[in-house]
Amino acid sequence: MADARWFTVLGDGAMGTACALLLAKKPGRRVSIWCQFPEQATALRADRENRKYLPGVPLSESLEFEPDFAKLAGSDAFILAIPTVYLGATLQRLKPLWPSAPTVDLGAESAGLIGPPIFSVAKGLERETLRTPTAIVRETLGRVPVGALIGPSHAEEIARGMPASLLAASDLPELAVATQRWFNSETFRVYTSTDLLGAELCGALKNVIAIAAGVCDGMGLGDNAKSALMTRGLAEMRRFGTALGAQSETFFGLAGLGDLITTCVSPHGRNRKVGELLGRGQSLDEILKGMYQVAEGVWTCQGVLALAREKGIELPITRAVHAVLFEGMAPGRAVAELMSREPGPEG
Amino acid sequence: MADARWFTVLGDGAMGTACALLLAKKPGRRVSIWCQFPEQATALRADRENRKYLPGVPLSESLEFEPDFAKLAGSDAFILAIPTVYLGATLQRLKPLWPSAPTVDLGAESAGLIGPPIFSVAKGLERETLRTPTAIVRETLGRVPVGALIGPSHAEEIARGMPASLLAASDLPELAVATQRWFNSETFRVYTSTDLLGAELCGALKNVIAIAAGVCDGMGLGDNAKSALMTRGLAEMRRFGTALGAQSETFFGLAGLGDLITTCVSPHGRNRKVGELLGRGQSLDEILKGMYQVAEGVWTCQGVLALAREKGIELPITRAVHAVLFEGMAPGRAVAELMSREPGPEG
Repeated sequence: MADARWFTVLGDGAMGTACALLLAKKPGRRVSIWCQFPEQATALRADRENRKYLPGVPLSESLEFEPDFAKLAGSDAFILAIPTVYLGATLQRLKPLWPSAPTVDLGAESAGLIGPPIFSVAKGLERETLRTPTAIVRETLGRVPVGALIGPSHAEEIARGMPASLLAASDLPELAVATQRWFNSETFRVYTSTDLLGAELCGALKNVIAIAAGVCDGMGLGDNAKSALMTRGLAEMRRFGTALGAQSETFFGLAGLGDLITTCVSPHGRNRKVGELLGRGQSLDEILKGMYQVAEGVWTCQGVLALAREKGIELPITRAVHAVLFEGMAPGRAVAELMSREPGPEG
Repeated sequence: MADARWFTVLGDGAMGTACALLLAKKPGRRVSIWCQFPEQATALRADRENRKYLPGVPLSESLEFEPDFAKLAGSDAFILAIPTVYLGATLQRLKPLWPSAPTVDLGAESAGLIGPPIFSVAKGLERETLRTPTAIVRETLGRVPVGALIGPSHAEEIARGMPASLLAASDLPELAVATQRWFNSETFRVYTSTDLLGAELCGALKNVIAIAAGVCDGMGLGDNAKSALMTRGLAEMRRFGTALGAQSETFFGLAGLGDLITTCVSPHGRNRKVGELLGRGQSLDEILKGMYQVAEGVWTCQGVLALAREKGIELPITRAVHAVLFEGMAPGRAVAELMSREPGPEG
């Protein structure tokens, strides 16, 4: 089996489009984007620009846009760039057409695997079940080779060729290395890891901390408070993740710390923005009415807190975010309660 | 022995003054600031404001300002807030008057210790020797009980009563707990640690990474690149620190990660500013001419890189910062070299 040459990105949002641009940079490749809606495929073909999600970035002539999945089922590898909330339903829809023949040689790891590899760039957990994107893939499609590409990755910057470094994580080490080979370039640096669960949990949990960081911004609490919040927030993400079986180190790497910084610091992030508006006194209802896209952290907070209670994991920041989001607690009181907890040894 | 009631802060800069304000918040305490220059003590007494380093913050009537160290030698505890570069010379000057009687009961840890405890809030390493502030204290004054209070701590914010969380680290656990008791309040949260070396190394090493982060800003490389740089920078700080005997965990706590975020993100930091100007094409000579205070990271970078070479520790970001600062390398080339290194497993 030769290396993958035909890549299909599932999803025509900002991150999917940015991934397609990255993949299309290397010669000899075919890169397609599967669009859920035929009219969007038509518009993308005509405009050569993703006006809805990535305005101002020209899309190279070689990129294909296709709403008919049957025409893409022969791809060597798939990139999953569908918001987690729609993932299960979308995969169910594509399932009857999903190929079962392996397309990439993963050496000793290939035994028992079916179909082409799928690499997820989705961030978030399924609302009710807390399943990660690749867990949804495996539960829907069977033992497909899966991985995730996670890290500080504003799609707008990646699409414009600005430098970025991400983590390719897979429980199949050969697949992580293959993904590194597929994506790595002079402006896009890819590290590898075998901690798939950790990487995907990081991508979801940081959104809750970003809401808290936004509250700091909205209340004008200053740099000291926000940095301390992010530090304790990362410790909290790690506590939860390792209790679920993730590796501690992942939380301090690009998927954890790296993405957390971008999400908490950049003024553009939706989750941080929700927090900022809460900090200024708006209610969750008012905020969500004014938002075009879902802020994943709002729902992640609910699910994570429920599971943490069940497992007896202490998550004071997540609990405070939950109290402000859903229990009507004033942000000022939540901050005061966090600060008045008895401090002990760091850890 | 009763608990400490008379605290003297050595140094009348922004951080020293902020510490004095924190200590003076609790009733029944005497808080003094030792000023190196008598005229500064006179001005502080008259103005009740530190116009030079902390303008706009009223200083409570109870704060004492004293240039004559002999009058302060009976204090129960000292806070060291003198820039590392002046520390050795200043302590030599105070040494003949330094008390040798213990003032605070540290229980089983007291054996062999002399004099009152000294807690350092200084950040940086001595330029030639790479000694930490508390190492300088012990080598100058003998086996004094020492510790460090490190973390995200813009003095301006602390002085204004904005919330902050820091780490009190001492190789004497009882002293870390005592410092927590002395400083902890509803807006100032103190965690404890026994990794004094790690905390002090964090306080110095983050300045080098902040220069690199500033280069990202100056070149307009974006949020993804800067977050990845900070993440890999923290990994580099940890690699160096643990090779010297520090604990890995400290680098992911308030002293490491927390302070790194503040230093790299806040627009006010001197080290980040040096990097930003380098990123815009200025030379180090031009930049230093325009700066009032020393940017510690410039010299820390030199010393750390020399020691890392000696010990065979790989520090690619520090090496790149050194090349831009002292070897005339263009920032663009340094970034390209960092991005083109062969990426491997994260760690």
